[in-house]
Amino acid sequence: MPTLGIDLGGTFARAAVVDEQGRILSVSKTALAERSPTAVVEAIAQAAAAAVEAASVSVEACGVGAAGQIHGDTGVLAVGPNLGWRNVPLGEMLRTRLGYRVRLVNDLSAAAWGELHAGAGRGAQDTLTVFVGSGVGSAIIAGGRLVSGAGGVAGELGHIKVVPNGRRCGCGELGCLEAYVGGHNLIAQTRELLATGHSAVLTELTEGDPARVTPVTLEQAAEEGDPEAREVYERAGLMLALAVANQVTVLNPARLILGGGVLTHCPGLRRRVLEGVQAYSSTTSREGLLITEAELGDNSGLIGAGLLA
Amino acid sequence: MPTLGIDLGGTFARAAVVDEQGRILSVSKTALAERSPTAVVEAIAQAAAAAVEAASVSVEACGVGAAGQIHGDTGVLAVGPNLGWRNVPLGEMLRTRLGYRVRLVNDLSAAAWGELHAGAGRGAQDTLTVFVGSGVGSAIIAGGRLVSGAGGVAGELGHIKVVPNGRRCGCGELGCLEAYVGGHNLIAQTRELLATGHSAVLTELTEGDPARVTPVTLEQAAEEGDPEAREVYERAGLMLALAVANQVTVLNPARLILGGGVLTHCPGLRRRVLEGVQAYSSTTSREGLLITEAELGDNSGLIGAGLLA
Repeated sequence: MPTLGIDLGGTFARAAVVDEQGRILSVSKTALAERSPTAVVEAIAQAAAAAVEAASVSVEACGVGAAGQIHGDTGVLAVGPNLGWRNVPLGEMLRTRLGYRVRLVNDLSAAAWGELHAGAGRGAQDTLTVFVGSGVGSAIIAGGRLVSGAGGVAGELGHIKVVPNGRRCGCGELGCLEAYVGGHNLIAQTRELLATGHSAVLTELTEGDPARVTPVTLEQAAEEGDPEAREVYERAGLMLALAVANQVTVLNPARLILGGGVLTHCPGLRRRVLEGVQAYSSTTSREGLLITEAELGDNSGLIGAGLLA
Repeated sequence: MPTLGIDLGGTFARAAVVDEQGRILSVSKTALAERSPTAVVEAIAQAAAAAVEAASVSVEACGVGAAGQIHGDTGVLAVGPNLGWRNVPLGEMLRTRLGYRVRLVNDLSAAAWGELHAGAGRGAQDTLTVFVGSGVGSAIIAGGRLVSGAGGVAGELGHIKVVPNGRRCGCGELGCLEAYVGGHNLIAQTRELLATGHSAVLTELTEGDPARVTPVTLEQAAEEGDPEAREVYERAGLMLALAVANQVTVLNPARLILGGGVLTHCPGLRRRVLEGVQAYSSTTSREGLLITEAELGDNSGLIGAGLLA
């Protein structure tokens, strides 16, 4: 029986009806005008109703992928940074509103599950999926099963500590990988460099306007030889490469699936990850490892959420 | 039906008959006079026969825990550092010699499985077991299942890279955690300090004899304020604490089970790991985390191997 997959972002809720093979039968999208839990539940319900109607099928179960730290057993979104939420019982709220069985998972887990069954992970039993976009996240599939952790928050690669008491992360803690490598933080670090006024390259690339800084700006400035940009960029590349390589060593996946806007738009950073996995993962752990790009793009989370339902 | 558990070390093979609850019914031990695969298989067969005879039961399956990197599907010991082995088809050799079904696993996996079912992990579904002895190893249990990895070599926490191109490890690679924190390497680093002749504290503790250095020597010298010993020791403590904390962040276990001679005999290092997990793991990942000592001592691997059979 087809299921409903929901991808809850920071500005839109998307809903899709997905069949057992992970094919999308219909899709619908609703803007999140307000970010209160009640308003967001209404927006999801609207997208869900439209998707179900368009597919003309009956649905009994719904999977939801949402950015943040989720206690899977209870369906509580403990920390939802995109929406500024803390401890929202989203699973229960949706169950009541929609009348479906609801399973709430981390957006990366949903994406990894979608890639496993309908994308870059097909045929594998053990995958490590790493996404670097505005944040950094990962999801682990071991023996064909999602590793959720005791409290449902496994996979938070962005929040491993790479510098004890280092740069403050969006999560509030110090020295997280994401504080150096996440897209928001690549932008923040580049703006800090731009503000010093020392970098002619950065000033030229952005015409001095901090609003024009993207992660690509940093990569370009580094490649053009700006010494400070290079330092920030190479540090980020090394930290990310080491973190991913070390997870390969510990988890020994068959596939390493890379995705997210920063890795897509910054080929130099992506290359550093590929080279870093070769250089720093243990030889035996990477025997037979296939490194591949996520295939399903924005739909991986929708499809995975539907399949997890 | 009871099963046979084998613990293959560097100097002894131990065999035990284990019941379904993980209780040891009989145990036997044979010294490894020679380290050739054929001689070791004979020694194991001798220990196994003695254990089975003493228990007066019939056995059909045998689990073997061995130090090193094991390709689980094929039963091949790819790298066996204690025995100096490479690519030994130990599973098949034992199957032929003993006539039992044989399952070969990493010694840490066996120990973690024993602790899960009969020791410090009882009742948990998600555990991270970290042993620091002469080497550093870990084993991951997620959702009640052992995470083996695609090639059977998951858990190699000792071989994550903590210093790019750093100190050479026993595995041949550079900058591994074990090269700084494993017992053999704590001893090697302390001997290097002793050899400089700068440390009055180390010279006094060992009477100048490198053969008297143990990991405890380093902890004592650091605690007595020797600056160079303190630097090596604090570096090792921080590296280990960060590595363990980061695995807690990524895996979100219910229990962190610590064991191994170095953590048992160096309480200061153990304290640094406990404090480091508090300081450096992400807050949500350690909610509800119980940190505990391994309970079964030397028998965890025997019991776990038997239960995995």
